Amino acid sequence: MSVLVVGSVALDSVETPFGKADNVLGGSGTFFSASASHLTTVRLVGVVGSDYPVERLQPLAHRGVDLAGLEQAEGESFRWRGRYRHDLNSAETLETRLGVFSQFRPKIPDAFRQTPFVFLANIDPRLQLQVLEQVEKPKLVAMDTMNFWIESRRADLLKLLGHVDLITLNDGEARQLTEQSNLVKAARWIMERGPAYVLIKKGEHGAFMFHGRSVFYAPAYPLEDVFDPTGAGDSFAGGFIGWLARTGDLSEANRRRAVVYGSAMGSFAVEKFSIDRLLEITPAEIGTRVKEFHQLVTFDAVLP
Amino acid sequence: MSVLVVGSVALDSVETPFGKADNVLGGSGTFFSASASHLTTVRLVGVVGSDYPVERLQPLAHRGVDLAGLEQAEGESFRWRGRYRHDLNSAETLETRLGVFSQFRPKIPDAFRQTPFVFLANIDPRLQLQVLEQVEKPKLVAMDTMNFWIESRRADLLKLLGHVDLITLNDGEARQLTEQSNLVKAARWIMERGPAYVLIKKGEHGAFMFHGRSVFYAPAYPLEDVFDPTGAGDSFAGGFIGWLARTGDLSEANRRRAVVYGSAMGSFAVEKFSIDRLLEITPAEIGTRVKEFHQLVTFDAVLP
Repeated sequence: MSVLVVGSVALDSVETPFGKADNVLGGSGTFFSASASHLTTVRLVGVVGSDYPVERLQPLAHRGVDLAGLEQAEGESFRWRGRYRHDLNSAETLETRLGVFSQFRPKIPDAFRQTPFVFLANIDPRLQLQVLEQVEKPKLVAMDTMNFWIESRRADLLKLLGHVDLITLNDGEARQLTEQSNLVKAARWIMERGPAYVLIKKGEHGAFMFHGRSVFYAPAYPLEDVFDPTGAGDSFAGGFIGWLARTGDLSEANRRRAVVYGSAMGSFAVEKFSIDRLLEITPAEIGTRVKEFHQLVTFDAVLP
Repeated sequence: MSVLVVGSVALDSVETPFGKADNVLGGSGTFFSASASHLTTVRLVGVVGSDYPVERLQPLAHRGVDLAGLEQAEGESFRWRGRYRHDLNSAETLETRLGVFSQFRPKIPDAFRQTPFVFLANIDPRLQLQVLEQVEKPKLVAMDTMNFWIESRRADLLKLLGHVDLITLNDGEARQLTEQSNLVKAARWIMERGPAYVLIKKGEHGAFMFHGRSVFYAPAYPLEDVFDPTGAGDSFAGGFIGWLARTGDLSEANRRRAVVYGSAMGSFAVEKFSIDRLLEITPAEIGTRVKEFHQLVTFDAVLP
């Protein structure tokens, strides 16, 4: 089954302890699409400015990402400039220029309205709500958000929570949204307001998936070299939702597998700048990494 | 098989967001013993002052902790006073009074010298080396350390590394010792200097075990209420070494189980002040928690 993603398509300029890259492909919609496209077909809705090097998205189109919902508007593209120091877990934003993204009103093409899996990447919750008015009976609606919206659009965000099945957010955002420092309590707080599934991402410390009384935990892959953490969260979401869409199976066992696919895709994303690594990985590499995750956490609880 | 532990036996005064406790049983030797005693017999070597309420250690003796190596010296006991704020991962030390501990010279009773498993809890590496001179052909020697010794006794610590099989330390200490920010590289750095096994504890973010090219990861148990984190690391070590000693089996599969027993015991320790929770848990509760860890991380990697 296909996935519809609505998110940002940006140009990033990033500096890490290992190098710098200027005006490379970025944005939540871009990372999500590059990741999920390894598992299923993807329909991307977003906006770029007249200055966007659209031809550089061709590798995504070749990977099965339908760009018919990518609008090109008059004006500047969304640009983000950031830096990571030694703590690769937190980015320092040096500059954000929204450009045409500030006027973005998502328009879902008719051909995309019945997509069974929908991912509302991190954009204004009012726009996320507008997307939901344009889709028809999706099997699963997932959303992401960030501190900026939790602060500035709390009421809209709470309304949106009542209309989604799943939310992904990081630990800091979960604590900020719920005012609960304990993540188990934070997840319960969120589930009481709508989403049946809550994924809390902890960066290099892995991710929790909550559903009812069930908790699943997957570590981050212990990479020796994290090159650029930008996009790890969206690549995680792409692997997770991509696997669910590929299989169409929302069972507990399959959702656990999906979290591991998410962790695997997140671990690839950080090995190079931008979506460079996501574009080059092979199905065999993905399979190997999933097996390595299994090897990393598996133990036999039977008492000797 | 038995475990010999050499460490501090202290009186702690602790304040957490949930309450405070004054002059309760504390110290690395105490937590380790209370934890490991659920799995095997323990021989404790340490020192207390003339003011120590030795009768309060009776529950440990009843649990099979041999206190014959616990010296009572003239003077004040080791006292630690600390506080945790909202970030339960890091303690703020308000006061440390070493008392008789500053003159401690470990004397291993003859009856303890052939103990097969030895845990050198967090004390001066020169004293840890003195212990090794007094034991005979142990099957496994494990050590802990802390930032203070890494700074002030680096040469002794490096010498000690060449004489131990296993080290447990937290992520910050591993980075400080090795000057490697990446934990995989830090573990390799340590293994090159002696220990075949490196356990890196990340508090609420779980623990890694490295051995050669193998990596195992266990999360911390997602507790809803962490009451007092004091002693979690030593309780982890007690569960880990206790399980290895109980089974006498150092295979990869059994070391993985041991890490989970360590994580389970650490998760109990933080549910109450001091060793209170460790003294009351039952074998059934430990077994249940180990199964819950299994449930928490298990996924089936077989592709549908």
